[in-house]
Amino acid sequence: MTRPVLMGTCLLIAAPAFAQAQNDPSRDPAKTEVWKPVPAAVATPSGASPSDAVVLFGGKDLSAWEGEQGGKAPWTVADGAFTVVPGSKGIRTKQRFCDIQLHVEWRTPTETKGFDGQHRGNSGIFLQEVYELQVLDSYNNPTYSNGQAASIYKQSIPLVNASRAPGEWQVYDVIWKAPRFSDGGGLVSPARITVLHNGVLVQNDTVLSGKTEYIGAPSYSPHGCAPIYLQDHDSKVSYRNIWVREL
Amino acid sequence: MTRPVLMGTCLLIAAPAFAQAQNDPSRDPAKTEVWKPVPAAVATPSGASPSDAVVLFGGKDLSAWEGEQGGKAPWTVADGAFTVVPGSKGIRTKQRFCDIQLHVEWRTPTETKGFDGQHRGNSGIFLQEVYELQVLDSYNNPTYSNGQAASIYKQSIPLVNASRAPGEWQVYDVIWKAPRFSDGGGLVSPARITVLHNGVLVQNDTVLSGKTEYIGAPSYSPHGCAPIYLQDHDSKVSYRNIWVREL
Amino acid sequence: MTRPVLMGTCLLIAAPAFAQAQNDPSRDPAKTEVWKPVPAAVATPSGASPSDAVVLFGGKDLSAWEGEQGGKAPWTVADGAFTVVPGSKGIRTKQRFCDIQLHVEWRTPTETKGFDGQHRGNSGIFLQEVYELQVLDSYNNPTYSNGQAASIYKQSIPLVNASRAPGEWQVYDVIWKAPRFSDGGGLVSPARITVLHNGVLVQNDTVLSGKTEYIGAPSYSPHGCAPIYLQDHDSKVSYRNIWVREL
Amino acid sequence: MTRPVLMGTCLLIAAPAFAQAQNDPSRDPAKTEVWKPVPAAVATPSGASPSDAVVLFGGKDLSAWEGEQGGKAPWTVADGAFTVVPGSKGIRTKQRFCDIQLHVEWRTPTETKGFDGQHRGNSGIFLQEVYELQVLDSYNNPTYSNGQAASIYKQSIPLVNASRAPGEWQVYDVIWKAPRFSDGGGLVSPARITVLHNGVLVQNDTVLSGKTEYIGAPSYSPHGCAPIYLQDHDSKVSYRNIWVREL
Repeated sequence: MTRPVLMGTCLLIAAPAFAQAQNDPSRDPAKTEVWKPVPAAVATPSGASPSDAVVLFGGKDLSAWEGEQGGKAPWTVADGAFTVVPGSKGIRTKQRFCDIQLHVEWRTPTETKGFDGQHRGNSGIFLQEVYELQVLDSYNNPTYSNGQAASIYKQSIPLVNASRAPGEWQVYDVIWKAPRFSDGGGLVSPARITVLHNGVLVQNDTVLSGKTEYIGAPSYSPHGCAPIYLQDHDSKVSYRNIWVREL
Repeated sequence: MTRPVLMGTCLLIAAPAFAQAQNDPSRDPAKTEVWKPVPAAVATPSGASPSDAVVLFGGKDLSAWEGEQGGKAPWTVADGAFTVVPGSKGIRTKQRFCDIQLHVEWRTPTETKGFDGQHRGNSGIFLQEVYELQVLDSYNNPTYSNGQAASIYKQSIPLVNASRAPGEWQVYDVIWKAPRFSDGGGLVSPARITVLHNGVLVQNDTVLSGKTEYIGAPSYSPHGCAPIYLQDHDSKVSYRNIWVREL
Repeated sequence: MTRPVLMGTCLLIAAPAFAQAQNDPSRDPAKTEVWKPVPAAVATPSGASPSDAVVLFGGKDLSAWEGEQGGKAPWTVADGAFTVVPGSKGIRTKQRFCDIQLHVEWRTPTETKGFDGQHRGNSGIFLQEVYELQVLDSYNNPTYSNGQAASIYKQSIPLVNASRAPGEWQVYDVIWKAPRFSDGGGLVSPARITVLHNGVLVQNDTVLSGKTEYIGAPSYSPHGCAPIYLQDHDSKVSYRNIWVREL
Repeated sequence: MTRPVLMGTCLLIAAPAFAQAQNDPSRDPAKTEVWKPVPAAVATPSGASPSDAVVLFGGKDLSAWEGEQGGKAPWTVADGAFTVVPGSKGIRTKQRFCDIQLHVEWRTPTETKGFDGQHRGNSGIFLQEVYELQVLDSYNNPTYSNGQAASIYKQSIPLVNASRAPGEWQVYDVIWKAPRFSDGGGLVSPARITVLHNGVLVQNDTVLSGKTEYIGAPSYSPHGCAPIYLQDHDSKVSYRNIWVREL
């Protein structure tokens, strides 16, 4: 049983109540106020990136990115967005990231005729280069559930299908917790991801079972912070307004 | 050491590679496609609530709410928003919720003269009636950090101060995981909360240590699903566009 | 800020204190007593298995086991223990298990001459048939750390090396939490293991990154409850006093 | 969809298999061997404390302990054990601990006549001074379930009642993870405990909801490492063979 000394101060309270509240330090609301640290102020203008974000694409150029095999990012920029050049291979950020909040806007081609399933508006956002959050036109476009838009590709089906029609801009807001590895290379804690798709929760603190695999089961290999990679999957998917905040 | 039988099929692969890929079932990408369940489609029109949301306030009336002590919700509705009537006490949803995604927009009064710290634009959003996400004008308005806007009141300081100026609309996007209790009333898992404030992550899977307390330390008591409660704290705080999705 | 109604009953307490303690129901210690459920009584005689355990080997026969490829378990029983017959292949329990507490005693051969590293006293305990807790003579016998006794083979190095000399009986006390998979086959939560080796904590709620692999990285494939498997790795390792409790 | 470059090396494997295994570096089992760090060797003689343990009572004296209010520990030592002196108040370790493995043996009085429920063989082991693992004679001695032996007092009922008869020595093996607090004093992660009672799992990674309270709900207050405290609850409970390993 708990020791008498822990029984609590309330037992000892004497009248009158009001005086008591003033005299009894345990009843002082100021005791549970914490004044430090003071969180940094961040400006959050509507429709713009937060003032403390690393802007990866603000509408003008791909200077924050490079080609998958080095060199200049080979995709095209126009009208405040950039677009995959099919066959040019993927692009990745020059900067490496671990735990982040990521905001990405993307749009799949309006023209869908002749393109079905995985062939319609396919791209992908790879966190730390190897964990894919699927980008796909999943608006009235059946495919395997763990490969549709907002899936963790071949690992986690989204909670709902929040897709907008092809040609419309869509939004991912992502909270990414990088996996941790021990000095010996063992997995200490798996990667976790939370995703809002067009404002709707589609991945809720989902555990990843390893890096994305097209064939076979995912597995982990130790790694550090790494770039964000965008996939060229032969579709003219566009992106705009990409920013990231390191956590 | 692992048993030989587990050594993997790749070891046994014979040439030619291309034929192999077609013949070896373990190399078939279709094996890791999952087609069911098919996530429900949710419409996500820009600026409106998702089609599967419970709309708690769409701009017209407080029919989804009741007064803190029962009866009609005593706050005023105008111009697509509703506003606290100081002294009328708080309001709560008629419906009870457990795990939810919650979207709330709120605005503190433009006039701040004579109101400082906790007296400026104070209200609060209580999940399951007892866990408070603070609403306050924290734009150039110092107070204790664990009591500023986007704090879990007297429990968790927000990661940054993403506050907009008084008179501007602000947004909370919340992911709430209710606490779990055993049959015996013990805590099985604490409540957890993730909050985006104006799109910026301010609470990242924060663990709550119990129900909100003004005086003394928070603690848990077993409970079930419960209403969302909005606080009257003597400030004319306004709310609009409130919706919730059960998880 | 928290609502006044939550400020707590203590503020209202009136004198005298002693009467108060008796009259104020919130100060009644009986309110936090929970009388049900009443935990089942389990006899725990010193040196014997608990009365609610499934005894997998009590000293007499291998009737709870079968050969790796079906049929009678091909290992030998003598003096209250059983011993691997090298070349006969492994054995597994007829019963399938998910979350368990497992007690196993094991002994590696006294004669070590000519056997080094992974060739000295090697066997293994596979939870759910595919997750290996290594059995090895790791007493003054260097090998790779993630392959020594009490490692999660090729995944997690033990916290310390608690090995006893060859020929001495050693003990593993294991708490195993099976991985969970979604209907779609995704990983919901990874397997976790806690191990005491000769009473010393060597794995502390370790996360597994998948099934044990001799070559390549571990990965998960969905599965249900499964047997415990003991490995024949060409060493005459002995076992005794094996019991399991389903959690 | 995953990038082609991730499709895996196995697709490219050529015959013959055996040569392949030798030539393909991805098929080399040595690639997943981790040789460092090398875990420290710990001697684990049967019936004695591990060589790396802090021995808090080895059978001779209470030099590792002090009285609850400072000064010499007022309990008696005899026959390799020490015994509560009712009325003398509790004792605590001079050393402070955070995360630990703890081994404790305890015995309640053989004479039970006239002592029932919480009055029979009551003591308690407080981790970090405020989180109680109950010690009680719970052998055919009904009381509230969350107050019986091996309960986390008034928080968590043990999974089973593994109690031995009064007068017999009993064992607790405990894995304790201290709670973490932020700089601001918020709870980052709650305390967790695993307990084996006489070798049987009775608390399985149980979450604590705060410090132990006799009256009212438990809550957290920030603190650092702290002593282990043993309670004087008016019963002549004995202890022996107490050791702790810092994790």
